[in-house]
Amino acid sequence: MYDRRPCLSRRRQAGRLSCTLLSYNAAAMSVKVGEIVQFVEGSYAGPADLMIAGVAPLSAAAGDRLSFLSNPKYAGMLAETGAGAILVARAQEGDDPRFIRVDDPYFSLARVVAKWFASRPAPSGISPQSSIGKNVRLGDGVAIGAFASIGDDVAIGDRTIIYPNVTIENGSSIGSDCIVYPQVSIYYASKIGDRCIIHSGCVIGSDGYGFATHGGRHHKIPQIGTVRIENDVEIGSGTTIDRAALGETVIGEGTKIDNLVQIGHNVRIGKHCLLVSQVGIAGSTELGDYVVVAGQSGFAGHLRIGSGVQVAAKSAVLEDVPANTKVMGSPAVPFREFARREAVLRRMTKRKTS
Amino acid sequence: MYDRRPCLSRRRQAGRLSCTLLSYNAAAMSVKVGEIVQFVEGSYAGPADLMIAGVAPLSAAAGDRLSFLSNPKYAGMLAETGAGAILVARAQEGDDPRFIRVDDPYFSLARVVAKWFASRPAPSGISPQSSIGKNVRLGDGVAIGAFASIGDDVAIGDRTIIYPNVTIENGSSIGSDCIVYPQVSIYYASKIGDRCIIHSGCVIGSDGYGFATHGGRHHKIPQIGTVRIENDVEIGSGTTIDRAALGETVIGEGTKIDNLVQIGHNVRIGKHCLLVSQVGIAGSTELGDYVVVAGQSGFAGHLRIGSGVQVAAKSAVLEDVPANTKVMGSPAVPFREFARREAVLRRMTKRKTS
Amino acid sequence: MYDRRPCLSRRRQAGRLSCTLLSYNAAAMSVKVGEIVQFVEGSYAGPADLMIAGVAPLSAAAGDRLSFLSNPKYAGMLAETGAGAILVARAQEGDDPRFIRVDDPYFSLARVVAKWFASRPAPSGISPQSSIGKNVRLGDGVAIGAFASIGDDVAIGDRTIIYPNVTIENGSSIGSDCIVYPQVSIYYASKIGDRCIIHSGCVIGSDGYGFATHGGRHHKIPQIGTVRIENDVEIGSGTTIDRAALGETVIGEGTKIDNLVQIGHNVRIGKHCLLVSQVGIAGSTELGDYVVVAGQSGFAGHLRIGSGVQVAAKSAVLEDVPANTKVMGSPAVPFREFARREAVLRRMTKRKTS
Repeated sequence: MYDRRPCLSRRRQAGRLSCTLLSYNAAAMSVKVGEIVQFVEGSYAGPADLMIAGVAPLSAAAGDRLSFLSNPKYAGMLAETGAGAILVARAQEGDDPRFIRVDDPYFSLARVVAKWFASRPAPSGISPQSSIGKNVRLGDGVAIGAFASIGDDVAIGDRTIIYPNVTIENGSSIGSDCIVYPQVSIYYASKIGDRCIIHSGCVIGSDGYGFATHGGRHHKIPQIGTVRIENDVEIGSGTTIDRAALGETVIGEGTKIDNLVQIGHNVRIGKHCLLVSQVGIAGSTELGDYVVVAGQSGFAGHLRIGSGVQVAAKSAVLEDVPANTKVMGSPAVPFREFARREAVLRRMTKRKTS
Repeated sequence: MYDRRPCLSRRRQAGRLSCTLLSYNAAAMSVKVGEIVQFVEGSYAGPADLMIAGVAPLSAAAGDRLSFLSNPKYAGMLAETGAGAILVARAQEGDDPRFIRVDDPYFSLARVVAKWFASRPAPSGISPQSSIGKNVRLGDGVAIGAFASIGDDVAIGDRTIIYPNVTIENGSSIGSDCIVYPQVSIYYASKIGDRCIIHSGCVIGSDGYGFATHGGRHHKIPQIGTVRIENDVEIGSGTTIDRAALGETVIGEGTKIDNLVQIGHNVRIGKHCLLVSQVGIAGSTELGDYVVVAGQSGFAGHLRIGSGVQVAAKSAVLEDVPANTKVMGSPAVPFREFARREAVLRRMTKRKTS
Repeated sequence: MYDRRPCLSRRRQAGRLSCTLLSYNAAAMSVKVGEIVQFVEGSYAGPADLMIAGVAPLSAAAGDRLSFLSNPKYAGMLAETGAGAILVARAQEGDDPRFIRVDDPYFSLARVVAKWFASRPAPSGISPQSSIGKNVRLGDGVAIGAFASIGDDVAIGDRTIIYPNVTIENGSSIGSDCIVYPQVSIYYASKIGDRCIIHSGCVIGSDGYGFATHGGRHHKIPQIGTVRIENDVEIGSGTTIDRAALGETVIGEGTKIDNLVQIGHNVRIGKHCLLVSQVGIAGSTELGDYVVVAGQSGFAGHLRIGSGVQVAAKSAVLEDVPANTKVMGSPAVPFREFARREAVLRRMTKRKTS
């Protein structure tokens, strides 16, 4: 249900949208179209000297903006847009001189924005109002904001930015070029790789939900494992990832997790998965690589979900799912089965009313 | 499923409930019934000098308490209640001298509580243990708690209260008479109107979930838009509102959002909407005005939901919904259609067992 | 859907798992099997002098580890495991000299880990970088971390640990032997019992969602009640518990709440309940004792749920449920009814395709 594409191309009511760069970020870049074309290895027949000062959706782009066409549904807007230059697919019909033809317009857009238009304010240096424990190793260029609390024996890699009011407990390690936003809590002995982004309110390494019920009371199973987050993982705001009971909870390389997702203890997520917001994964379930889970879906514990599996929104996955399968529903069944059920129900209720 | 009324009127087991004001708040107000009657423009035939020291549900009110009848279901409790005075509708049957007849008893209750019985402790002044950046503009009477971190170029309006451990990043603005509770994180360049209340753990302006998948990896689309929250918005604890990819994510005036709600990038919520807890709204979806969404429901991205739409609990809205429609189910269908399906299923399972 | 057992026994790929104790926690305990046997009142025929340095799942245990068999499904692993000693049920077949026969292997494991292998780093003493209000009463051995903000008139019992960046507002009380992890926010006048554990990002006592709609606007009903959390409650990370409108929101003794759960105002949870992650309970609903609610389920407001009720994952409970009933589905129906519906749908879609 939740789609993972940003909303760059869908602006129906141009008048209502501000598409200028942030006024806050006043000293925005300006760059020649020719430089952009070269950077994205595109082909372009327009004026290479035109200055581009930002990006904007087709519906709201002025002459100094770069726009793009990724979803063919919006091709009709190409004629009307005021954009100065437009990233399109190599095979795009038409001969608009503003076209910059590239292999993947959406990916090219991401690269252009990241290179020229994405600067944001961040703390630099070590705030004298932070608290730093004993035996902490800080790489070159590490920034630590006010009221960040760094425990003993913590290691933080080069150029990593710790925003204000972050707590990192004893023995945790964070790689290089990471960003840890305000109000994040990282429990002791958690391991985080390079180039990870952890948004505000995330909790990494809290205790898994494990109790032995005995004599009418629930006795806590101490959670003495840890969490390991591999390189290039992004974790959305408010997401919680529990430490293992024993061993590790693992988030694989390149996986991107949205907001308010719950990852139980001893879960193992493979590489390059996409977990959309409010998903929940119960303890010990394992996901392969390139698994895509849409919003508000959940998994029972102790399941094995194959690589390439896709789970539709608001599904409840209660059984193992073989690789490259699409499932949907509560309980989740294969897409085709779900569609048949819907069709049957629709037919039956029609029959009833006719 | 989740109802939005507080629980003032539904106290089945009076003995179990403490209905006195907080013992903490020892110096509570005491006010004459006559003053209350005048304030709510009510009609009242009882003793105007009776002192009222607080409010309580019918089932648990002593003689120095004001109570109320909003839901006719509880009319039977009028006879038994020990309340000193009772807010009722103009047309209420009976001639109990304790009745204060008003147009809207529930609204009158809200006003009375807000005027006399709702004081709570809050920080005042600027804590020397806070961190305040360069070029920060603070209005008159602003309070900033300990360990609050206010970035550069932030503007905070008159009488706004920032509790301890809040982080507000560079370039954000907050209007007058707002309350920002502890542990809130407001990312850079967010715009918040007047009289907004933001509860603990909220994250405003974190990055939307946008990636371009290319060569087997998910490449981040920098999220360079912002968030704009209009006047009189309340946001529950733990709720996350992402900044736009380009342009703005908008929460319209007077909209009230409950706890643990997820609002994706470029979402536009209209005015006076009610979003109950654990609702999720995917990127670029637009809600009109006066939309009511019950708990745990979700919306796919890029939808248009008309004004006055009502969504039942735990629904998955996957298509546009025209104005003033009620929908339910996963996927969501009109109420009537959902009821027919339930009826058919019920009948079929009966047939099977008989 | 979400099960509540930790993941100790389910390690299919031993090679991938680190089962040693945390390298961070270098000074780990070592203890003789004989001592363990005595502590758990087990019977054991092996060498009492064998040293045990930690616990591990059967699939990954070396000779200096204690393992256990709780789920009979894994009995086949008893032969292969390298564990030095194994907690098993009294009636376990076989005569492996490594067996420690006990009444409840899982509970015994919990006790052994808690006694010897569960130490974790924690702050001690009162950080000079904390903020402590007026008239605060601190018990013996209380620890308060950096950037923790403790309001006026707060009481904290003996040996309770407050981690960094916690905010506790005026007039709240916390019992003895509690742990409050980083980034927790406790609103004013909340009452928390003894031996409670509150994980990062929790919000206790935020305003309930209560509005009186009048003249096209939603007017806030001030939430002037409070929250009371009884003894031995554990609350997972990111969970939100609202204060009452009037009176109290109550979490009963021994109840264990997982991550990202939402508890509305005036909710009353009984004793020894289990609420798994992402559950939501709307205002004024009351749960009896020993209620178990699986992940992502929700309850409408003003319901009465009897003791011993079990709710399957992703259910929407819209009506009262009598004691000791199992319900499932959205809307929730008794288990048997749900199973019949599933069977009917499965049969109908088969018919269609054959």
